[in-house]
Amino acid sequence: MKVAGTPFRTVWMDGSVVHMIDQPLLPHRFSIARLPDYFATARAIKVMTVRGAGAIGATAGFAMAQAALSAPEESFHEDLAAAASLVQATRPTAQNLFYAVRTMLQAIEKEGSNIAQAREAAREAAHAIADDDAACCEAIGRNGAPLLPDRARVSTHCNAGWLAFVDWGSALSPIYVAHREGREPFVWVDETRPRSQGARLSAWELGQEGVEHAVIADNATGHILRTGQVDLVIVGSDRIAANGDVANKIGTYTSALAAKASGVPFYVAAPTTTIDTSCPSGDEIPIEERSEEEVQYTWGWSDSGEFIRVRTCPDRSRARNFAFDVTPAELVTGIITERGVVAATPEGIASVARAG
Amino acid sequence: MKVAGTPFRTVWMDGSVVHMIDQPLLPHRFSIARLPDYFATARAIKVMTVRGAGAIGATAGFAMAQAALSAPEESFHEDLAAAASLVQATRPTAQNLFYAVRTMLQAIEKEGSNIAQAREAAREAAHAIADDDAACCEAIGRNGAPLLPDRARVSTHCNAGWLAFVDWGSALSPIYVAHREGREPFVWVDETRPRSQGARLSAWELGQEGVEHAVIADNATGHILRTGQVDLVIVGSDRIAANGDVANKIGTYTSALAAKASGVPFYVAAPTTTIDTSCPSGDEIPIEERSEEEVQYTWGWSDSGEFIRVRTCPDRSRARNFAFDVTPAELVTGIITERGVVAATPEGIASVARAG
Repeated sequence: MKVAGTPFRTVWMDGSVVHMIDQPLLPHRFSIARLPDYFATARAIKVMTVRGAGAIGATAGFAMAQAALSAPEESFHEDLAAAASLVQATRPTAQNLFYAVRTMLQAIEKEGSNIAQAREAAREAAHAIADDDAACCEAIGRNGAPLLPDRARVSTHCNAGWLAFVDWGSALSPIYVAHREGREPFVWVDETRPRSQGARLSAWELGQEGVEHAVIADNATGHILRTGQVDLVIVGSDRIAANGDVANKIGTYTSALAAKASGVPFYVAAPTTTIDTSCPSGDEIPIEERSEEEVQYTWGWSDSGEFIRVRTCPDRSRARNFAFDVTPAELVTGIITERGVVAATPEGIASVARAG
Repeated sequence: MKVAGTPFRTVWMDGSVVHMIDQPLLPHRFSIARLPDYFATARAIKVMTVRGAGAIGATAGFAMAQAALSAPEESFHEDLAAAASLVQATRPTAQNLFYAVRTMLQAIEKEGSNIAQAREAAREAAHAIADDDAACCEAIGRNGAPLLPDRARVSTHCNAGWLAFVDWGSALSPIYVAHREGREPFVWVDETRPRSQGARLSAWELGQEGVEHAVIADNATGHILRTGQVDLVIVGSDRIAANGDVANKIGTYTSALAAKASGVPFYVAAPTTTIDTSCPSGDEIPIEERSEEEVQYTWGWSDSGEFIRVRTCPDRSRARNFAFDVTPAELVTGIITERGVVAATPEGIASVARAG
């Protein structure tokens, strides 16, 4: 997608160096991080220089490729196993991360003891993961766009835009397609505390593409739904269980409840890599709890142009920081995938899920 | 309630000087503003040095008493009328402010031309308004506390604590009573964007009283309810309609939806002065929309100790800022008033409403 008119991807690999848009600096500074080895790339996932299901998956693939390119022959498979452990430990809820690491290990192991071929296979597999992600997201946009009426008023949560993938995005992709078709969608952007990915990233993406939008406090989503100001909700997902339960950014669940109460369709947009058929229901999805400081502080740009944090809580008050929640399948109108729009039911999920 | 072990009220009058806790400086600085005359006191309401329905009403009463104490005999009634106009113009939507000014003028006019008696009556009436507010809130606490099991885990939204009243508060009062009974309540404090009254004020109050609590992003309320981490929800209210619909801080509605979906009781605590029997339902309650800057920015204390704002949105992104929402009566388990706990039904409301 475009940044000041120039096409960019969220993450890419050039030679053995991984490049990514430095997302914590957005929207106030557009900067590219360059990561020379898999330690740096894994750390970038951990500290959320890159975040979002598809972008994490692609980055994990590139990290494994970096590991394959740099591991010495005499300890090649041991080093790859260690790299896999390191990369998988960065973010516990991200299905795409595990999918990418597994895919990379399979591609590498297929080459057996031919290390040179294994390195080349790793490089190709990593690029294929990224290209597949971009292609899936574009297809999600094409499949989802017909769900939007003209001048649709769409509510979304967090950032399931192209910054969360390699390109196009999931929840925002149908909006971008409708916008390019001239159908003038409008987007209600939930701020998405504590990390403000909606205010910072979705608003920035939409602005760069020229899509009309307004940022609201997360608290206001129920109100705009109840008062008839939303035609449909589209959110992304970090993991979809076999029964159609959906894990996504904290706050998604209450948005789904409010949509249901107001009779507004609630769609989840995600590539089929997000589906975890080994996970029977949302009850089995682990919910990451992150640092309390993310809740106690807000990061942003001061009036004098510094990127700093401000504290709202008292010094001695503790906080809890649940990063995701689970939306039960019965609240989900449909799941928009690259293979079509399906019901959030075991049958619907099975009809599009990739072979484990 | 206590601040560092010492009992305080939110606002009080000593001689002819009004004292109040300077709320915009909380939680990072505890400071008492001293207001020597009614001009200064009215300004403190205007700039929100004091906020919250009950606290505003009491402050307005004290401002009128200051006017009575200082007005020269020869222009006493003219000066009081001018003071009433000034005080009423500070927060034009605050019902308690009009109630307090009207009560004060009635008390003063009853003394006719005896100015000395009128001054004394004004002083007594102002103290009575403040004492009545504190007594109502303490009664709310006594009426609400039996609803809390031992070691209750209570979710609350915004600040309906003692800082919003003269003492005790509404939603937090039952928690304070249970705490003093040694029943160890724990409070989940919604941050309450965009103005962060939960993180700033409720967390501070609870900490000063020694009540265990954790601040969470507003987005997390649905998750903790769905995962069985909450025994009951108690919130305050800005206006209760005759049918039991409740207007309160934006975000209350989704909290009520999530409580209902999880089978968790959802209580509204408010003095009966909050009931507006002239308002048939929540549909007739106008929803204030405030400055978009409150959403685009977050105010807090920098690491170097300055109280500043940071911007999260892109420079060109607009925001919308709905300040309140309406929770339909069917989501409300009960309304805790100083006259008892009643159903959120026309009959329940009528049984405790004050005569218009």
